[in-house]
Amino acid sequence: MNTEDVANKVVELTRKQAWREAVNSLYAKDIVSVEAQGMGGDSPEKRGIEAVRGKADWWINNMEVHSFKVNGPFVAHDRLVVEYDVDVTDKNSKQRMQMSEVGVYTVKDGKIVREEFLPLTGKG
Amino acid sequence: MNTEDVANKVVELTRKQAWREAVNSLYAKDIVSVEAQGMGGDSPEKRGIEAVRGKADWWINNMEVHSFKVNGPFVAHDRLVVEYDVDVTDKNSKQRMQMSEVGVYTVKDGKIVREEFLPLTGKG
Repeated sequence: MNTEDVANKVVELTRKQAWREAVNSLYAKDIVSVEAQGMGGDSPEKRGIEAVRGKADWWINNMEVHSFKVNGPFVAHDRLVVEYDVDVTDKNSKQRMQMSEVGVYTVKDGKIVREEFLPLTGKG
Repeated sequence: MNTEDVANKVVELTRKQAWREAVNSLYAKDIVSVEAQGMGGDSPEKRGIEAVRGKADWWINNMEVHSFKVNGPFVAHDRLVVEYDVDVTDKNSKQRMQMSEVGVYTVKDGKIVREEFLPLTGKG
């Protein structure tokens, strides 16, 4: 798959919230996944497909999703960007949150080798 | 300036379409600027602040801007993303175009050292 194929697949699978399928079909084994902030003092950077699978499972288990909008993809060369607008309730804290962020993905040999998530900090 | 300061300045100056001011105040001398495609067989990758200044001048001289919307910024670590929704007419061809793209910017020592522009390829 070229970058655009991967990009279209990211959009298709995230719109379906098919996180496990996305990880299994699109991610390189040595994926590097970078959040804006680590959770609970943890590093914001995770390495390896098992760590990303763990993040996906955490999300599925902990979030009640009210809406999940996916905009994009934006594509050039080995890079793609997708925007996510999310409305969720954390099942533990019962806190409802609206979040917008972009994922910046780097593709090599048809697989995602790096992903970075950047939250919206401005007024949009 | 940290990444968020640079990001806010990018949004402020591009909303004003103050391209020259943006280049002069925010860009590193050895900036690398990557478009999705080069123009007229040219390389999509330009190096150095003079090349970027040339791109800004080309844009100012060749485009009649009907609207220029800036969404963002999205910020984490040394990276920021801004989305541009543009409605312009090329003064030479008289062709009117609506384009959406994101700029992915990398910041080092308070200056933009790399920018990549990725056009929207999906339905948004």
